[in-house]
Amino acid sequence: MRGRLILLRTSWAWRIGAPTATTAAATAAHLPQGASSGPRPCCAMALYRTEEHGQPHSPGYHLFFKNVAGHYISPFKIKRARNDEYENLFNMVVEVPPWTNAKMETATEESLNPIKQDVKDGKLPYVANIFPHKGYIWNDGALPQTWEDPHRTDKSTDCCGDNNPIDICKIRSKVLSHGDVVHVKNPGILALIDQDETDWKLIAINVNDPEASKFHDIDDVKKYKPGYLEAMLNWFRFYKIPEGKLENQFFAFNGEFKNKAFALKVIKSTYEYCKALLTEKCDGGAINWTNVQVCDSPFHCSQEEARSLVESVPFSLNKGSNEEDQVWHFLGKR
Amino acid sequence: MRGRLILLRTSWAWRIGAPTATTAAATAAHLPQGASSGPRPCCAMALYRTEEHGQPHSPGYHLFFKNVAGHYISPFKIKRARNDEYENLFNMVVEVPPWTNAKMETATEESLNPIKQDVKDGKLPYVANIFPHKGYIWNDGALPQTWEDPHRTDKSTDCCGDNNPIDICKIRSKVLSHGDVVHVKNPGILALIDQDETDWKLIAINVNDPEASKFHDIDDVKKYKPGYLEAMLNWFRFYKIPEGKLENQFFAFNGEFKNKAFALKVIKSTYEYCKALLTEKCDGGAINWTNVQVCDSPFHCSQEEARSLVESVPFSLNKGSNEEDQVWHFLGKR
Repeated sequence: MRGRLILLRTSWAWRIGAPTATTAAATAAHLPQGASSGPRPCCAMALYRTEEHGQPHSPGYHLFFKNVAGHYISPFKIKRARNDEYENLFNMVVEVPPWTNAKMETATEESLNPIKQDVKDGKLPYVANIFPHKGYIWNDGALPQTWEDPHRTDKSTDCCGDNNPIDICKIRSKVLSHGDVVHVKNPGILALIDQDETDWKLIAINVNDPEASKFHDIDDVKKYKPGYLEAMLNWFRFYKIPEGKLENQFFAFNGEFKNKAFALKVIKSTYEYCKALLTEKCDGGAINWTNVQVCDSPFHCSQEEARSLVESVPFSLNKGSNEEDQVWHFLGKR
Repeated sequence: MRGRLILLRTSWAWRIGAPTATTAAATAAHLPQGASSGPRPCCAMALYRTEEHGQPHSPGYHLFFKNVAGHYISPFKIKRARNDEYENLFNMVVEVPPWTNAKMETATEESLNPIKQDVKDGKLPYVANIFPHKGYIWNDGALPQTWEDPHRTDKSTDCCGDNNPIDICKIRSKVLSHGDVVHVKNPGILALIDQDETDWKLIAINVNDPEASKFHDIDDVKKYKPGYLEAMLNWFRFYKIPEGKLENQFFAFNGEFKNKAFALKVIKSTYEYCKALLTEKCDGGAINWTNVQVCDSPFHCSQEEARSLVESVPFSLNKGSNEEDQVWHFLGKR
């Protein structure tokens, strides 16, 4: 049985202080500083809407993205940065709000890459609450137009990429909603090694945050958010234990958070990998690159085709149940 | 302007394992073990409903209690324990669910003692999030039929009571709703000294919790919930700092949690103080003792009078805003 439930909500990207222009025209996409020219997004804008299909916490829930013209777009291909005047300024696509448990992710293998909970082993995934934390302890999300290439060995970690965009852990203030697109800057990065793959975790702060000007590099996070980086490391270390898995002890650089300069190099390389993928210069495997944004991409589709793809997605209204977000797991001193 | 919005929900007290009878008749009120006879509740039962008036997070929000017959009752006067066969078995009235911020309390100075957010300095009260915690880190509530008498000096703390029922911090598992009435047992107690008044914090665990049988005394909490008691102590120490107040350094017994035997003595004495208050043997000050449950109390009122009191309560539908539950406060190493 198929049905249809569509809820439209508008996600206004926060306006940043320094660049003043806020119109769609003024915020047209730019390639990142130093990048060679390539396919150019034809209609990327600073404002995005999201469209919910199905019931949250059900297997059929999908959150699709639209631009202000009402055209379906992929969040994976939203322009990576707001513009190239500011090297350390990025768009973040929020996937999971803090203090919640549902593991929502950009579905890289589905057309138009909606955000959804990907059923694994017949269950919707939720992260457990590990005392003293409740769910995620940051706004979790992704950096568009980046790709951790599973066929290339990262020289710094000696492991290949995990076939996903770079993850972002946005620290400090505003609780956002999944699907929000916000402007962030980056003071540093952590390299998690998961099943011999590099899974970068970019630390970010909203550029519109009242305290944003304090955070220039990773040492500022240590100074102004005492205990937060240690808590993040422990979060990644322990979060799979309630599922019966072992403690994750695999971090590159002995779990050291690398600084902003290092992070910018990682972003640049993963951007180049993504661009190569988009132009079929490398094998993206199961990644679904169908998009309406990049007109000269071989994966480009029309708006009509995009609408048809969205309408073909099955969903149920059955809400899944989750006991896991009700309890705290006490793992003891480690 | 006055309006009326009434939402009725049923709060089923959890059934405990050991005593098998669950009917209203079988669970009629008993006085606690060893207590002398006094006024007896005339219609206390194991099942309660709650009735919401007004919009949550607005100044006019009130949560009233009813028994299964549909009669308004006061949660302050719900029978204190399920029965007297089990000395360490109590009814807990839940005021605040864990991981939330709204400071909901039994309004001891209002007729029928609804649960509400009591406006202070023109604002609705919310607790701040002190990193690494989100809101309250337990189900917060009260022990009915107990009263911390402000005119009597507690020998163990050398301070008078704070004019409230005993607070309960229910640890472990189920997230409850405010207004739920559940059966708990008590492994210990903490004495917070606030403005030279004793404010007892009873540690409790739901008797229906899958792990309830592990928790006999305070050492079991230390064993099975490592770090929890320390987190509670720090929570009480720091939670007023974001309001501009000083760290609370005043705990009796140097912040040591006392054991079950000690806690049972505290409960017994505060029960006696409450009974004296009910029978006008002492001065309750501004406490509103109007009730329909205790027929031979001088404060007894009829159901018609109770209904009239409820209907006379003004409320607005304006929802208050709260930024405080969105941010984390980092207080650094202490």
